[in-house]
Amino acid sequence: MTPIFLKLGGSLITDKTGVEAVRADVLARLAGEIQQARQANPDLRLVLGHGSGSFGHVAGAKYGTRQGVHTAQEWRGFAEVSAAALRLNRLVTEALLAAGVPAVSLQPCASAMCVDGRITTIAAHPIQAALTAGLLPVIHGDAAFDTVRGGTIVSTEEVMMALVETLRPSWLLLAGETAGGLDLAGQVIPRITPQTLPQVEAALGGSRGTDV
Amino acid sequence: MTPIFLKLGGSLITDKTGVEAVRADVLARLAGEIQQARQANPDLRLVLGHGSGSFGHVAGAKYGTRQGVHTAQEWRGFAEVSAAALRLNRLVTEALLAAGVPAVSLQPCASAMCVDGRITTIAAHPIQAALTAGLLPVIHGDAAFDTVRGGTIVSTEEVMMALVETLRPSWLLLAGETAGGLDLAGQVIPRITPQTLPQVEAALGGSRGTDV
Repeated sequence: MTPIFLKLGGSLITDKTGVEAVRADVLARLAGEIQQARQANPDLRLVLGHGSGSFGHVAGAKYGTRQGVHTAQEWRGFAEVSAAALRLNRLVTEALLAAGVPAVSLQPCASAMCVDGRITTIAAHPIQAALTAGLLPVIHGDAAFDTVRGGTIVSTEEVMMALVETLRPSWLLLAGETAGGLDLAGQVIPRITPQTLPQVEAALGGSRGTDV
Repeated sequence: MTPIFLKLGGSLITDKTGVEAVRADVLARLAGEIQQARQANPDLRLVLGHGSGSFGHVAGAKYGTRQGVHTAQEWRGFAEVSAAALRLNRLVTEALLAAGVPAVSLQPCASAMCVDGRITTIAAHPIQAALTAGLLPVIHGDAAFDTVRGGTIVSTEEVMMALVETLRPSWLLLAGETAGGLDLAGQVIPRITPQTLPQVEAALGGSRGTDV
């Protein structure tokens, strides 16, 4: 079946009022629900993405990384943004593995190149190979190299949009505490929350052949 | 200056008699020495790689991941190999950051594709961009997707060899406890240990223009 892109918002899985404060209980519950959805529908192919929440935003804001990276100090900030994203990513993927989901982290920064903030290159083949194998690839908002800005930050949504043409997902779902939504090819994308996840899981099971 | 590839052996930075036992003191000392070498020679461009030691080898051996990955159980093993490599990589990069080195992890599995155990595709441009920016890119032995075997494991040396043509390093240095060495274009590559690292650092400073 065509894959589904599911983003867990940074505000959902971290406490944005703290510094690098993961909401381990929420993460464990979401991981368990994803495992249940996979077991209920073995054909389900998910690409999971997550925001940085209280992890990446501190360093990113301190150094203005998204706007560009030029000085040695700003490159130090770039390295800190990258490390913060990977620290959170480790917790997300480990929570999925602990719940029985064969999750594999695939770091956007390792293959992406941007031109003035826009992703122009990103490796989709490992994500495609992971989906074919029945794994759950995990991507995330990340630091990224940029031919104009030197370096920048790309959001989970920007990474997902860069993968849409190659992976052709049937759905793009955003799970967050705050209002969200993304318009893809003229369609309003459903927004899910912990409260509505059961209904979304039903939709996941019934989404075969549905193209956005 | 042309980059230098430096590999820290898994047996050097982990205790292979334990399970996921990092040698934090050795790691901190090596990170400090790398920072000193960078300060002594600001033009130094290093690509750091590290083996998996007691982290990746347990899952890899249990599931026979290098030989091929086909069943759901073997793919679970692939996910575990990937996670173990990233857990160690996190410790290495965090140790470098703590020592003042602007290190950035760049995960091989996120861009590599193999054909029957041989890397045929890997993204070199983020590593090149990191070097140009004065960052220290960190790579590692990793799980990798393979068009023949499904999945496999690639060693740090195999990742480095796949990058040689694009990045054209002047030196490839291996730091380990056990005997090692790699023949690159007919040259014997020097092997360094914690005991000989000071001499190697001197060589790093004097390697400008030396091509292997």
